[in-house]
Amino acid sequence: MRALAPGGVVGVLGGGQLGRMLAIAAAQLGFDAHIYVDHDDSPAARVSARATVGDYHDHAALAAFARSVDVVTTEFENVPADTAQALIDAGAIVRPNPRALAIAQDRLLEKTFLNSLGIATAAYAAIDAVDDLDVALARIGAPMILKTRRMGYDGKGQARVATPDAALAAFESFGRAPCILEGVCAFEAEVSMIAARSADGDIRAYDLVENAHAGGILVRSTPARASADVAAQAQAACRAVLEALDYVGVLTIEFFVMPDGALVANEIAPRVHNSGHWTIEAAATSQFEQHIRAVAGWPLGATDALFAWEMINLIGDDAARWAELAHDGRARLHLYGKRDAPAGRKMGHVTRRV
Amino acid sequence: MRALAPGGVVGVLGGGQLGRMLAIAAAQLGFDAHIYVDHDDSPAARVSARATVGDYHDHAALAAFARSVDVVTTEFENVPADTAQALIDAGAIVRPNPRALAIAQDRLLEKTFLNSLGIATAAYAAIDAVDDLDVALARIGAPMILKTRRMGYDGKGQARVATPDAALAAFESFGRAPCILEGVCAFEAEVSMIAARSADGDIRAYDLVENAHAGGILVRSTPARASADVAAQAQAACRAVLEALDYVGVLTIEFFVMPDGALVANEIAPRVHNSGHWTIEAAATSQFEQHIRAVAGWPLGATDALFAWEMINLIGDDAARWAELAHDGRARLHLYGKRDAPAGRKMGHVTRRV
Repeated sequence: MRALAPGGVVGVLGGGQLGRMLAIAAAQLGFDAHIYVDHDDSPAARVSARATVGDYHDHAALAAFARSVDVVTTEFENVPADTAQALIDAGAIVRPNPRALAIAQDRLLEKTFLNSLGIATAAYAAIDAVDDLDVALARIGAPMILKTRRMGYDGKGQARVATPDAALAAFESFGRAPCILEGVCAFEAEVSMIAARSADGDIRAYDLVENAHAGGILVRSTPARASADVAAQAQAACRAVLEALDYVGVLTIEFFVMPDGALVANEIAPRVHNSGHWTIEAAATSQFEQHIRAVAGWPLGATDALFAWEMINLIGDDAARWAELAHDGRARLHLYGKRDAPAGRKMGHVTRRV
Repeated sequence: MRALAPGGVVGVLGGGQLGRMLAIAAAQLGFDAHIYVDHDDSPAARVSARATVGDYHDHAALAAFARSVDVVTTEFENVPADTAQALIDAGAIVRPNPRALAIAQDRLLEKTFLNSLGIATAAYAAIDAVDDLDVALARIGAPMILKTRRMGYDGKGQARVATPDAALAAFESFGRAPCILEGVCAFEAEVSMIAARSADGDIRAYDLVENAHAGGILVRSTPARASADVAAQAQAACRAVLEALDYVGVLTIEFFVMPDGALVANEIAPRVHNSGHWTIEAAATSQFEQHIRAVAGWPLGATDALFAWEMINLIGDDAARWAELAHDGRARLHLYGKRDAPAGRKMGHVTRRV
């Protein structure tokens, strides 16, 4: 595909806040966004030229969507394999490609893939059946965490397990879905590297970001205090993953920084990432624009940070503080237009100059 | 009206690039935008939760629009008086208020109003009939410019006139519409001051901006080189106008800077302004967010500039340079999604860090 001219249509699978911010970035470059989402009144649809509400397994609706757009991308990694295939069968260019999505949505494939590139991960073992637990527990050793291979995010589908009984109970609670048992890393910090690869293979990375979580949900991101060597390791890992996957778009890798400065890769997100929301105001090009540029076949934008910043997530009730946050002259407030705010739901974020 | 909570609906009259950037700003604060515009497929509608396509004199459609939104604002000053009244009759809160719109859309009312506040303008005379020309020409003296009182923008409805014959020909070419004859100022620079007033009377101004025009159309804006005294004069004029009009929202005044440093007010724009597009990236709060904050009853945001910038308009064919502009690492490109690019049409802009 040649560079998509302004006026072209960028299709986005998914209607949440990431799709919303992608749609706004697409509009700023003169594209129309067309959202495909499985429910009505989504945050992304409300800022987009067009939205199709359809099931992710409705191949006829997906084919019509594919024909109406110039390129398809996604705001979430758990795109079903048949969804991506239906789009491709209908002639769509899907970026990132289905292999990248397939690897990122399965913790076992993901870790195997990372290790195959020489990128360290926590020790892990596949748990396909109850019988697998004993050997794995003995090999990995406490502390450990059992995770479903698929559909995990924001700490869901995860349980700390110290004993065989606890591991069995957790496996049962996940409905004996295929899992992996992971060793828990005694890390010093959690960091993420966001990088993009263009259709012609150019790669650009943002500054390394340090992340604080609570209950498995990101609460605050700041520029990482890690050494230049750690940042270089993270960049090299991103480059290896982007190239091995022939990836086009923005990709994020979350890492643990160990006490000796070693990096352990925790997770690949084949998309824009919550820890990159600061780039909207504080980087030369936002991660959302960067992703749109990449999938549209444009050159990548500059990634330098423009000022010191912190990014704070507004989760559940936090968003009720909008009136107070509106008074903070150093804060840029972003609210996602979600209609209700259950505990744990990401409702918005604030990027502050510090 | 109390501060409008996120989830509220901001109505915008007009569907051009200013409405588009207002709609995006509204979305970022968690509001839904509802555009009312007289044609289909407008740039603003394509980034808004809802759009009504209707005539500006269709009072039934306007009433339905009024009932569907929490506040109404506008992207253009030429809102017909009956449009504003129909919205108010249907219970809408209209910000800025109809008096501000009425004054800004009539060059005679505008100049009379400015003078009544002690703000200098060029010499002018009302031309309601051919008979008015001779006395006015003698009083104002060359060089002069004849302008229609209403519906002028981007240099339209204006003609330089040096002789009685030329003045008569211009008046005839305007269909003898009511005009004013203005003295032409031998200015050193054209500048604009963008300021906002909140519903509770707080006023904040951006830095003074210097503007370069070609053929009556803005081509480039930069931070003004004018003295602090000139900037203070411009701020004082904005404050006087905002307060006299009990204005809520962003307002712009264009001035001429004379060789002796005196300011001569040229035009009031009761809205966000092309010379303020730099604020999207380079100010603590964009003019679009500032306007939405004001009309939604929120506190105003900080207006400080974050870095040195220049803003370049992309007019007509300029937008065909998108591929070249996409390579400039210091430029943020904005394209408005307009379907065709006749000469003189504002297609987009670029804000560059310099």
